[in-house]
Amino acid sequence: MPYIGRNTNVHMRGIVGYLVTPFTPEGAVDVGTLETLVDHLLDQGVQAMAPLGSTGESAYLNRDEWALVAETTIGRTQGKVPVIVGASALTTADTVDMCRQAQELGADAVMVLPISYWKLTDEEIFQHYRAISDAIDIPIMAYNNPATAGVNMSPELLVRMYRDIEHVTMVKESSGDIQRMHALHLKSGGALPFFNGCNPLALEAFAAGACGWCTAAPNLIGQPVQDMWRAVEANDFNTARDLFMRHLDLLSFILAGGLPATIKAGLSLQGIPCGIPRLPLAPLGESDTRTLAQLLDTPHP
Amino acid sequence: MPYIGRNTNVHMRGIVGYLVTPFTPEGAVDVGTLETLVDHLLDQGVQAMAPLGSTGESAYLNRDEWALVAETTIGRTQGKVPVIVGASALTTADTVDMCRQAQELGADAVMVLPISYWKLTDEEIFQHYRAISDAIDIPIMAYNNPATAGVNMSPELLVRMYRDIEHVTMVKESSGDIQRMHALHLKSGGALPFFNGCNPLALEAFAAGACGWCTAAPNLIGQPVQDMWRAVEANDFNTARDLFMRHLDLLSFILAGGLPATIKAGLSLQGIPCGIPRLPLAPLGESDTRTLAQLLDTPHP
Amino acid sequence: MPYIGRNTNVHMRGIVGYLVTPFTPEGAVDVGTLETLVDHLLDQGVQAMAPLGSTGESAYLNRDEWALVAETTIGRTQGKVPVIVGASALTTADTVDMCRQAQELGADAVMVLPISYWKLTDEEIFQHYRAISDAIDIPIMAYNNPATAGVNMSPELLVRMYRDIEHVTMVKESSGDIQRMHALHLKSGGALPFFNGCNPLALEAFAAGACGWCTAAPNLIGQPVQDMWRAVEANDFNTARDLFMRHLDLLSFILAGGLPATIKAGLSLQGIPCGIPRLPLAPLGESDTRTLAQLLDTPHP
Amino acid sequence: MPYIGRNTNVHMRGIVGYLVTPFTPEGAVDVGTLETLVDHLLDQGVQAMAPLGSTGESAYLNRDEWALVAETTIGRTQGKVPVIVGASALTTADTVDMCRQAQELGADAVMVLPISYWKLTDEEIFQHYRAISDAIDIPIMAYNNPATAGVNMSPELLVRMYRDIEHVTMVKESSGDIQRMHALHLKSGGALPFFNGCNPLALEAFAAGACGWCTAAPNLIGQPVQDMWRAVEANDFNTARDLFMRHLDLLSFILAGGLPATIKAGLSLQGIPCGIPRLPLAPLGESDTRTLAQLLDTPHP
Repeated sequence: MPYIGRNTNVHMRGIVGYLVTPFTPEGAVDVGTLETLVDHLLDQGVQAMAPLGSTGESAYLNRDEWALVAETTIGRTQGKVPVIVGASALTTADTVDMCRQAQELGADAVMVLPISYWKLTDEEIFQHYRAISDAIDIPIMAYNNPATAGVNMSPELLVRMYRDIEHVTMVKESSGDIQRMHALHLKSGGALPFFNGCNPLALEAFAAGACGWCTAAPNLIGQPVQDMWRAVEANDFNTARDLFMRHLDLLSFILAGGLPATIKAGLSLQGIPCGIPRLPLAPLGESDTRTLAQLLDTPHP
Repeated sequence: MPYIGRNTNVHMRGIVGYLVTPFTPEGAVDVGTLETLVDHLLDQGVQAMAPLGSTGESAYLNRDEWALVAETTIGRTQGKVPVIVGASALTTADTVDMCRQAQELGADAVMVLPISYWKLTDEEIFQHYRAISDAIDIPIMAYNNPATAGVNMSPELLVRMYRDIEHVTMVKESSGDIQRMHALHLKSGGALPFFNGCNPLALEAFAAGACGWCTAAPNLIGQPVQDMWRAVEANDFNTARDLFMRHLDLLSFILAGGLPATIKAGLSLQGIPCGIPRLPLAPLGESDTRTLAQLLDTPHP
Repeated sequence: MPYIGRNTNVHMRGIVGYLVTPFTPEGAVDVGTLETLVDHLLDQGVQAMAPLGSTGESAYLNRDEWALVAETTIGRTQGKVPVIVGASALTTADTVDMCRQAQELGADAVMVLPISYWKLTDEEIFQHYRAISDAIDIPIMAYNNPATAGVNMSPELLVRMYRDIEHVTMVKESSGDIQRMHALHLKSGGALPFFNGCNPLALEAFAAGACGWCTAAPNLIGQPVQDMWRAVEANDFNTARDLFMRHLDLLSFILAGGLPATIKAGLSLQGIPCGIPRLPLAPLGESDTRTLAQLLDTPHP
Repeated sequence: MPYIGRNTNVHMRGIVGYLVTPFTPEGAVDVGTLETLVDHLLDQGVQAMAPLGSTGESAYLNRDEWALVAETTIGRTQGKVPVIVGASALTTADTVDMCRQAQELGADAVMVLPISYWKLTDEEIFQHYRAISDAIDIPIMAYNNPATAGVNMSPELLVRMYRDIEHVTMVKESSGDIQRMHALHLKSGGALPFFNGCNPLALEAFAAGACGWCTAAPNLIGQPVQDMWRAVEANDFNTARDLFMRHLDLLSFILAGGLPATIKAGLSLQGIPCGIPRLPLAPLGESDTRTLAQLLDTPHP
């Protein structure tokens, strides 16, 4: 993976590790624990660091908190791996402003989800990304996640944005629909790099040619995730399948329970308490926490 | 419709008219035009006034703009009809704070949509509404709109909230699913008042027992909407059907094109220019505007 | 309802009662009980008689059994009301042959469902109905039921068939989608007569202008179904609503449990034992049968 | 692949080739051409032969035609590879009878799809398969294809049938849902052999551990399909991916156009005319036929 450097042409491949946003008991961003979490993900060998995604409860932070998390993460990562900062707001103006600030803070790339209230048309989405691209000089990861964004960008639209909007250089596809990945490949002539963001599809997304996996799993199971990535790089899918199947119950569980709640609970179980999600999100319940502990202790045989 | 008075036990029935939020060419809230729009809806005979809903681009306003629209609408309505203020934010804390402010500004009721990023569980939604109810003394209209909120509250949950949360006194159902209305009726023993928020379902929702229709249509076709309501009140569904069918193409069109864009375009056509929606929302295109003009001029025979 | 007569221009309106196909303990068609059931439905005041629909397990009968049921029903009805015979097969050739035989046996109309294995295109469906129409001289009720047919005919296609295929004169719409009924009305200029085939939508379908209700409910609750139809005819939807809501739990129950199983169980409870459905369909279980008995004894207050 | 022998414990792996049913211009089964097609598929190196599936228009044949196709295929295959005969009817009695006859004719296994008119419950499906198993001594491939069967058997049900019904020894999964394959693996402890039946998912299904691919593609592109299977067997997924992506447009096209129509058109293009599908199925149109010719001539680069 040639990581060329901050604010330049970033060639990312591999495991993109997603951070939770730790809170103090009073509900403020816990900067010290955030630095611990950055160190922890670096120890797990992630190929890139991603604060302020869905896992990071980005949608539930105010603007100052968002900036604090971005600044802290970039500062603590110290350029060891690229940092991709999630930057998504409902209005184009706010999103542009956040992306500019991410760049100023030293982000290597921004990840932009077209969150919507009213369903956006293809043209509205295109103009939204173009306005962002015109305002910055770092790569944009176009993030498709219909379950949280309320809009499902078509592969055709994503390829068109990749071709016609300067800084849209990669896609994160979290729909879990493998046929969309096929379409991204075929419609871009294999040129458009796409990352998979659906944990229970990690194995097959790599089979389909994904250049990376965007995941919060390294917070809890860093080694097998790295081993799986190395097996994929070595074209050894039998090994990758074994690793994936051993941890698939866990990967499905952390998604189904809501990543902020499950990852925070898992980090606590592993000795890094980082608070609970912000209301209306509830913390993981007792019974689910026991199940999580079991899944962490005893992978599927 | 016994409208008992501000901040007391409001018994609303009939047509709840939704306001757009007019913007100046520079993009600021246009207070003068907003007052004109309030007068216009009162002239159309609406039984209640509703600023800051989906139509009002509430999701795209900042907090100060939101408060300005609420205050202006309440002030201009002068208690002639009840005012239901839309108040929805992603965190519980922000939503509580907005609902408190709405009450302080003199709202007769708040309409709360459980907008979500991560899908909320029933318990998370219940606690969200309970926290709001505990903080205010005016009625809450629980607003179900899966297309914009990202969550579809079950009829069971809605009836449970109606029974167990003091200020949840009514439901606005915008899913367009008539079977959900049946379930609200049967599971509450006919006690839970529900309003329909899906324009192309207005006729059948009344047949199913809806006590009102939440709609932006009175901005454009106030008379037939009032005539239809009166026919329903008179148990004359043959007349209601004729009126509905004459305007169904228009009702479907304004929904399909996005209510902020279509209603603003229609108001301009009718001599009340009120700006365009805020980006990323695009204004209605030329061709669609011509279609809208035709539908307004020539109802279905 | 001007019932003009057998094999001529049938103007049907009102309640179309669907027959189950009774079986002997050995699994043969029970002709005697079938005659009893015909008499029973006539006693309930149905405006038309419909053997060999979904309720009649038509799909599970062989051709000889199908003909026996058609012949018996037509003979016993004696022209008191029109008889609409369900006639649907996977190949066009077989369907044509069945429709011809239905006509020969004296059916007033045939009801044709485009059952499919491979999804059919609009053109394939159109040609299928045209071939049938070319072979017979009685009206065809085009039957849309995506849940059982595997294909959802668009309103556009149905209106086109109504306009361009001689004997397609009416539609039975069982999708439960009220917007499809609106589309049938608007796209045909109100000319295309449509019947509702979804029990829990009966009230709203009438509000939307359905000219009849295709239902097996009269087997069990003939009087309230007739009362509801009369209220609709009298433009008294408040009364129709009261009747509908009282029996809505039952209407939903008989649909959810599978009409052959629930109606046969209900007829047994009411003193007309008519056997059980044919495997793989299972008879109604004990617990569900108790629930059914309660619903029949105690309508919703 | 240890092919142990007719009517015994068949261990199938690899490519299962599906036959079309050729018709004469008069519409009768064309026995001579069917033998040519069997030879053709054997030449393409398929690991098993499958007449009377979806591709074989099984649903549109009468019982005598079905038996003729089964007998001809088994006779011509001469035990070179196992023959899996599709045997599915709406009633349990007819399905049992067909499976018995398939066994008598020398089939190595039967493939059974739970085609339904009324949606079947899990228990109805279980009893259906049990009745079949009790009547025969050869393996049953439980075939899940919600698009054509109208029912989607849950992974839990399939694993339960595999464990508790003697002759249910394998699953064909055509839903195209990779998560169902994961569930089959996890819930059976990796014991239940599953075949993929969705062409555009072939690569990822192998990644997920499918032991074979049920496909009509070898009729048209036998060599690359075999090469892909060999690459999978060699754990060389990079090669498998290249082959798959080169032919993915074709694999999607033949599925989207309806396999009977597209495979028959393709075979004609390749010099084996085998008639057209049976009405209401239409043959492939001219424009689509040209597209197919191009896809066959020029795989994706």
